[in-house]
Amino acid sequence: MKSKFDREILDQLLPYASEVSISDGDLVRLHANELPWRNEAVMWSLRDSILDIPSNRYPEVTNSELRSKIAEYIGYKNENVLVGNGSDEIIDTIGKAFIEPLDKVLIPSPTFSLYSAITRVYSGVPIIIPLTSEYMLHMEKLLSEAKNAKIAIICSPNNPTGVLYPEDEIKALLDTGILVVLDEAYGEFSGYTGLPLINEYDNLIVMKTFSKAFGLAGFRTGYCVGSKTVIESMSKVILPYNLNMISTKTIEFAIDHADFMNEAVKRIIENRGYLFREMEKIKEVKLVPSKTNFILFEVENPRKIYEELIKRGILIRYFEGKKYLRVSVGTYENCVKFISDLKEILNVR
Amino acid sequence: MKSKFDREILDQLLPYASEVSISDGDLVRLHANELPWRNEAVMWSLRDSILDIPSNRYPEVTNSELRSKIAEYIGYKNENVLVGNGSDEIIDTIGKAFIEPLDKVLIPSPTFSLYSAITRVYSGVPIIIPLTSEYMLHMEKLLSEAKNAKIAIICSPNNPTGVLYPEDEIKALLDTGILVVLDEAYGEFSGYTGLPLINEYDNLIVMKTFSKAFGLAGFRTGYCVGSKTVIESMSKVILPYNLNMISTKTIEFAIDHADFMNEAVKRIIENRGYLFREMEKIKEVKLVPSKTNFILFEVENPRKIYEELIKRGILIRYFEGKKYLRVSVGTYENCVKFISDLKEILNVR
Repeated sequence: MKSKFDREILDQLLPYASEVSISDGDLVRLHANELPWRNEAVMWSLRDSILDIPSNRYPEVTNSELRSKIAEYIGYKNENVLVGNGSDEIIDTIGKAFIEPLDKVLIPSPTFSLYSAITRVYSGVPIIIPLTSEYMLHMEKLLSEAKNAKIAIICSPNNPTGVLYPEDEIKALLDTGILVVLDEAYGEFSGYTGLPLINEYDNLIVMKTFSKAFGLAGFRTGYCVGSKTVIESMSKVILPYNLNMISTKTIEFAIDHADFMNEAVKRIIENRGYLFREMEKIKEVKLVPSKTNFILFEVENPRKIYEELIKRGILIRYFEGKKYLRVSVGTYENCVKFISDLKEILNVR
Repeated sequence: MKSKFDREILDQLLPYASEVSISDGDLVRLHANELPWRNEAVMWSLRDSILDIPSNRYPEVTNSELRSKIAEYIGYKNENVLVGNGSDEIIDTIGKAFIEPLDKVLIPSPTFSLYSAITRVYSGVPIIIPLTSEYMLHMEKLLSEAKNAKIAIICSPNNPTGVLYPEDEIKALLDTGILVVLDEAYGEFSGYTGLPLINEYDNLIVMKTFSKAFGLAGFRTGYCVGSKTVIESMSKVILPYNLNMISTKTIEFAIDHADFMNEAVKRIIENRGYLFREMEKIKEVKLVPSKTNFILFEVENPRKIYEELIKRGILIRYFEGKKYLRVSVGTYENCVKFISDLKEILNVR
């Protein structure tokens, strides 16, 4: 049902919830690209400090302490950093600051669905540029469309494909002069970051998150890095006091305990290697090489595989109408169970 | 400085931070309408449960448990409730769902500055309707402008005036058929709520928050209540996984401990009475009767009073270019100090 006040765009949007919603019960969660381990040191630090938090007060309005902490961690300045409730709020704030009605936003596809939803919310026009059959950027089309576009949003390594795009291609896009948003939500698993490019290009915004490699999805904190000017523009429209005190405190602890993240990334890469090698042996499955904490694979009848896995206690990500599925890299035990179940479903010995 | 990608509206916007930003140091905070007491029971409950929180996982995408808890608390259904990072995110989501470019939004003024900022962000047109000289709604103008408007945003009791508008006036606005957003951030201090009107009007959204009477500003959680249809529309565009796990948990505890809120409201109303009676004795000050946890007062040379109070260790809210100041009702001791300092500044015995 729709309300009589609905904007036109609402007809084209489904709640994101409907994409991912499933009562997971006791299922092994390999659908949301979460880290399978909890950051215990951070949780204990938080527990020890929680009674010192002046929770009846508003947080500091510009999150300057946390921004300084992040800035120091990545080697930039406070003025280059903006924090949000997950990268989601950062994408939203990019819309608020830069997407004028009818502005064109280039979005390679498939990718994270929020980019085009947010573009529409700000009355912009998403220009969807399909990836090549090898899940790479279609550079010719992108560069040609860039002439009439204001922004390009590139997720690299990309969700849901796991592919890291070559830096040359990002630079070629930046050289067109449009605003390039580089979403590195999964960057830590790839060994690459575009952060140093910020020094060269004032039309680049790099997005990062604490939800993936840092294992803090429950705290919903992301950030972006860009030139002072671009960050200042975004600061004008980001919601005031956007981040709660506890997430702020937690992220400060997480940076102090960055060894947890480094260790987790190492283990995920090992498990990813195992998962990849085992899946490679299954001829019914076509794999996409991954630089993230998940693997995309093409398979016949993905819906059936997805449902059979649920019956066996594993939840992975299904995409309506697509020929692929996405599985997150969990613990080693998760990976072993997934391989075993998948083989059983496909009747592979 | 502005970036070349800036939307036009950014010229008209200053960061909210610049309105309120001051390094508060050890100042008595009477500028942000916070509760002066911390909700200790909630903080202890949170401390005791924090190690059980699966913080490496994403929160449940639609916040359904928390919504059910709130729904039960206010006597509505889950489907009537949407939660956000403070009421701010709720206002933003109203923009996302209902403000089409050039849509007119009625905003009585002065009021919370975010309403018109958000309207502009969604390329809508804020129609500012000045309050009467007694800080009441100018109903004639409002009803006449409603013919061409889509939405009216009414803060009642209003920030920064403290005035509660008569229910008849809210009903008259609702009867025009436009979408009426009733922001009751300070509702608990007024003894009135428009929540029962939801049953009569499907064009009403009532906004509430846990930042004020519940004393949980640090957790940034607000919600709104409306017809199933309106809430469904907003659900389509609200950012997924918007609320972090800790705020969710905390608010659940806060509802379990609602006695804290009731007791706090009682004490604030007592202190407000004291503050009002004492300020009434000062002829240099013109008071606006308050149904909130703050008092607006007109005074000559507000800038000077504001600065002199800071020198004496008290921070209240100054509004550039206005003839009034706003002071939050703090502890009894805060009120005594404020009165004493104000008298000293005004040379009143």
